[in-house]
Amino acid sequence: MQPLAEPVSRLIDAFAQLPGIGPKTASRLAYFLLRSDESIALNLAKALEELKANTLFCSICFNIADRDPCPVCDDAQRNHALICVVEEPLDVQAIERTGEYAGVYHVLHGAISPVEGVGPDELKIAELLQRIQAGGSAAPPDVDPAHAADWTLLHPSIQEILLATNPNLEGEATAMYISRLVKPLGIRVTRLARGLPMGGDLEYADEVTLGRALTGRSEM
Amino acid sequence: MQPLAEPVSRLIDAFAQLPGIGPKTASRLAYFLLRSDESIALNLAKALEELKANTLFCSICFNIADRDPCPVCDDAQRNHALICVVEEPLDVQAIERTGEYAGVYHVLHGAISPVEGVGPDELKIAELLQRIQAGGSAAPPDVDPAHAADWTLLHPSIQEILLATNPNLEGEATAMYISRLVKPLGIRVTRLARGLPMGGDLEYADEVTLGRALTGRSEM
Repeated sequence: MQPLAEPVSRLIDAFAQLPGIGPKTASRLAYFLLRSDESIALNLAKALEELKANTLFCSICFNIADRDPCPVCDDAQRNHALICVVEEPLDVQAIERTGEYAGVYHVLHGAISPVEGVGPDELKIAELLQRIQAGGSAAPPDVDPAHAADWTLLHPSIQEILLATNPNLEGEATAMYISRLVKPLGIRVTRLARGLPMGGDLEYADEVTLGRALTGRSEM
Repeated sequence: MQPLAEPVSRLIDAFAQLPGIGPKTASRLAYFLLRSDESIALNLAKALEELKANTLFCSICFNIADRDPCPVCDDAQRNHALICVVEEPLDVQAIERTGEYAGVYHVLHGAISPVEGVGPDELKIAELLQRIQAGGSAAPPDVDPAHAADWTLLHPSIQEILLATNPNLEGEATAMYISRLVKPLGIRVTRLARGLPMGGDLEYADEVTLGRALTGRSEM
């Protein structure tokens, strides 16, 4: 068998490193790029090169951002006394899309999973506790007195921690773990509601979801 | 809603340009690359940049290659009197993987499709006819006499055209079109066998495939 042209096989190998892209999809992508305008490949190459160079983790919420603090943590319009704890940056986007949340975030970068060897120390849980403890303290002396009011607005006492980890084994374990640490501090700890998905069909709901919808039923 | 960090959204847009990758898959890929080692993104970027710069179409068979003529067209071990006509470079790879073919190829770069506005002129059909007509002619004067024997081996009279276009409407139409042009030249024209796929189940075969398997039945 004749080998593929080397630049093509190298691109196929590079695509196949990505999750959910097997060798067949990788070759389709490579041959698509060979057929199409060179700008598509070059744009993608440029975006890949600049990805890590131009992004960082927000030092407050650990979301991915192009500046520190990120636009959410720096926004005096939002409620900084309410922190929503999520597993991944993509979850922040999902909650932002609802348009129903005006608090701030804390990204754990994973969930506790003994199977995958991820313990609490691998996640940003210690940083969350530090953030809660620092809330409500006076502005440090290096803050410009003209902006002291803004500083206080951005650093109030934390009133509620909303645990928005995934509704699966790892997410539930992580939520339980954080809840046990935060509740003794006298802070309200909430969890996203579990129940029937909107647009779903009762008949096809699994027992666990339906059970949760029953125990979590609300007054009308 | 807070916008995504600009480098991330640019990468998501670039991924979403690829076929079969929607906005959701594109964000998963982008966040995977953010989490993983930078070398994965940079390798992919490099492979993308070098893709078109270091590949070309073979001037004989129009397959993608890193040199011209391509390794297949330049291989005196192969039978250059037998040309397999395929739609896409990926099809060459599929046939090479069988290990059953020792002839050479001709890549049309598509199939006749009036719906998509692809006529015979958009394909490398004229080039195929030229190649057939040039077969068997004497070595041009600029060929080194020491390599004249090799030259003859690589440019014999064409004896058979094997039409390996896809077994669908467009592929059949293209095969029919080429067959009508080539047969009057006194050259054998063959088509890949249609029939039951190996490992398949008679019960689940569609009528057209089963019909083809019946009419094309072979002696045992």
